[in-house]
Amino acid sequence: MIETDAVIIGAGPVGLYQAFQLGLLEIGAHIVDALPAPGGQCIELYPDKPIYDIPGIVQCSGRELAERLQAQVRPFNTAMHFGHLVAELATQPDGRFALTTSAGLVFNARSVFIAAGVGAFQPRALKVIGLDAFEGTQVLHQAPAAGTLSGQQVLVFGDDDVALSEAVALATSPRPQRPASVTLVHRRDAFSAAPDVVARLRAACDAQQMRFVAAQAVGVETNAGRLTSMLLIGVDGATFVQPADMVLALLGLSPKLGPIAHWGLAMAKRQLQVDTEQFQTNVPGIHAVGDINTYPGKRKLITCGFHEATLAAYGAAQRLRPGEPVLLQYTTTSPRLHKLLGV
Amino acid sequence: MIETDAVIIGAGPVGLYQAFQLGLLEIGAHIVDALPAPGGQCIELYPDKPIYDIPGIVQCSGRELAERLQAQVRPFNTAMHFGHLVAELATQPDGRFALTTSAGLVFNARSVFIAAGVGAFQPRALKVIGLDAFEGTQVLHQAPAAGTLSGQQVLVFGDDDVALSEAVALATSPRPQRPASVTLVHRRDAFSAAPDVVARLRAACDAQQMRFVAAQAVGVETNAGRLTSMLLIGVDGATFVQPADMVLALLGLSPKLGPIAHWGLAMAKRQLQVDTEQFQTNVPGIHAVGDINTYPGKRKLITCGFHEATLAAYGAAQRLRPGEPVLLQYTTTSPRLHKLLGV
Repeated sequence: MIETDAVIIGAGPVGLYQAFQLGLLEIGAHIVDALPAPGGQCIELYPDKPIYDIPGIVQCSGRELAERLQAQVRPFNTAMHFGHLVAELATQPDGRFALTTSAGLVFNARSVFIAAGVGAFQPRALKVIGLDAFEGTQVLHQAPAAGTLSGQQVLVFGDDDVALSEAVALATSPRPQRPASVTLVHRRDAFSAAPDVVARLRAACDAQQMRFVAAQAVGVETNAGRLTSMLLIGVDGATFVQPADMVLALLGLSPKLGPIAHWGLAMAKRQLQVDTEQFQTNVPGIHAVGDINTYPGKRKLITCGFHEATLAAYGAAQRLRPGEPVLLQYTTTSPRLHKLLGV
Repeated sequence: MIETDAVIIGAGPVGLYQAFQLGLLEIGAHIVDALPAPGGQCIELYPDKPIYDIPGIVQCSGRELAERLQAQVRPFNTAMHFGHLVAELATQPDGRFALTTSAGLVFNARSVFIAAGVGAFQPRALKVIGLDAFEGTQVLHQAPAAGTLSGQQVLVFGDDDVALSEAVALATSPRPQRPASVTLVHRRDAFSAAPDVVARLRAACDAQQMRFVAAQAVGVETNAGRLTSMLLIGVDGATFVQPADMVLALLGLSPKLGPIAHWGLAMAKRQLQVDTEQFQTNVPGIHAVGDINTYPGKRKLITCGFHEATLAAYGAAQRLRPGEPVLLQYTTTSPRLHKLLGV
């Protein structure tokens, strides 16, 4: 159990800046994110595309913005927990919040900041009836450690850089670790992966190290509780059976509102309703900032999220330190802030 | 008379970003500022001190922030009018706004954005009874063109870089342009000017090119409607008469809310009251953003002003294009915005 003043759900730009503003107000925070690294949508959706409307930054990529915000929050040594989906949030009798993550972390927090954007990014599922029974055993969303698939018949679903690279890597791995067969499945013979990655796929197929099949999955075959094959339907409309010991569904990530919808917070059109004074939800102590919230005039822009995080931090400071006025200090002139920032 | 969709009062960071957000929404704007250049408080109060809390900018000076925002708004070629104080604002029968500046510019605007910070920066007056009758004739707040003071007895009031440099420059100007005498007056023999500037003052005094008097102004002497002398009181408490043909009051700038207080806009504690949906005042079409506004939760931070300017722009777009939904477009993905930005 981790005791903390604040838990921030989401390490996108707004979550990172939330930690920064809390830091200036001397409120310690932990950040939790389902992704393996900071950046949120910026990194998942447009890591290398330029953004032009961050105030004072004429142009930067999503990746660069995330890096800049990480550098900015660094003085506060905010603990960040990646690969954790916050599964449960419950208000305790003492007004604190118990948060439990999918990977087993438990927080006891005095305030919560939901900066979850469009939801937690989770692997997109391969939608085939009967397949979800094998999630985590014979259906994985990332390649397991080298050698784990040795001698197996592996089906890889996907068409992006990750899917193609992974399929080729498995097919060309050293003999003792190599699967018995590797088959890439995608609905058509055209890929969203980069040309050089596609070229490597073609070369591996030409060298008969692996196969590509243009088809869609429509069913499963099982035997004694084990997945044995997938039923595929080809571009010619014919169904066929493809033996499979392991299915790698590398279909990218998609955001899911997920557990947040079940925490009893007031919502409108799948957004959390907040006030505009401290961007607090209907539960005192739980704030929502960035794309996940809604209020009159709301526009889903990063610039707006930065403001929301700022006022949410001041609101929390007032609640956490009752009776003590929360003074506005300027980073330009305040010796106290300079000390906190280490400048 | 300049016809325009929008007039922005104030070219500080929030005013500049206001022009940028209006530009993205294809709303043309003119910026008016009492100062001679963009930057507002950032330039007047802390041009070279670092700011640490602009999101995504770990550290920048006020000057740098102003430069970055100018670069960002450049694609929109916003007309900027410096050295203009907006003196009058009147709502026209057709719902438009007539704005008149101190220097005689007249705008007919469909919307107004007051981004005036703590007010317009104006020269600090020398507070002596009877002196204001000579404002603009025998009392100036910046040095006139070279030679104008030739042969005159000049008193310079002030203690900063500008005041000392100006006094020394006058005292050491070429003979035909040089005043008959130059006297610097400051209440004590200690200055806020930089050491090298003070050294130049000392040298000019030692060389008997000018004089320094530690004193305060307490009165004026006039003759036939002309200022002839100032009454000064020295550090020893004795009053004496100092002949003066011209007084240069170089006491720096101080922000004044000025005419804004008289435009009939709802105010609270000298701030303009706005909603949080589009940061509009009680007069539809007049928005107020940045340090000059107030609403529940308001914190005077630049980050908040950027958000306010963003929602104000969307609010104005909705009002200027009734019946046409104002869609949110992202600078990362919108070809239309890319065209506007010239990227």
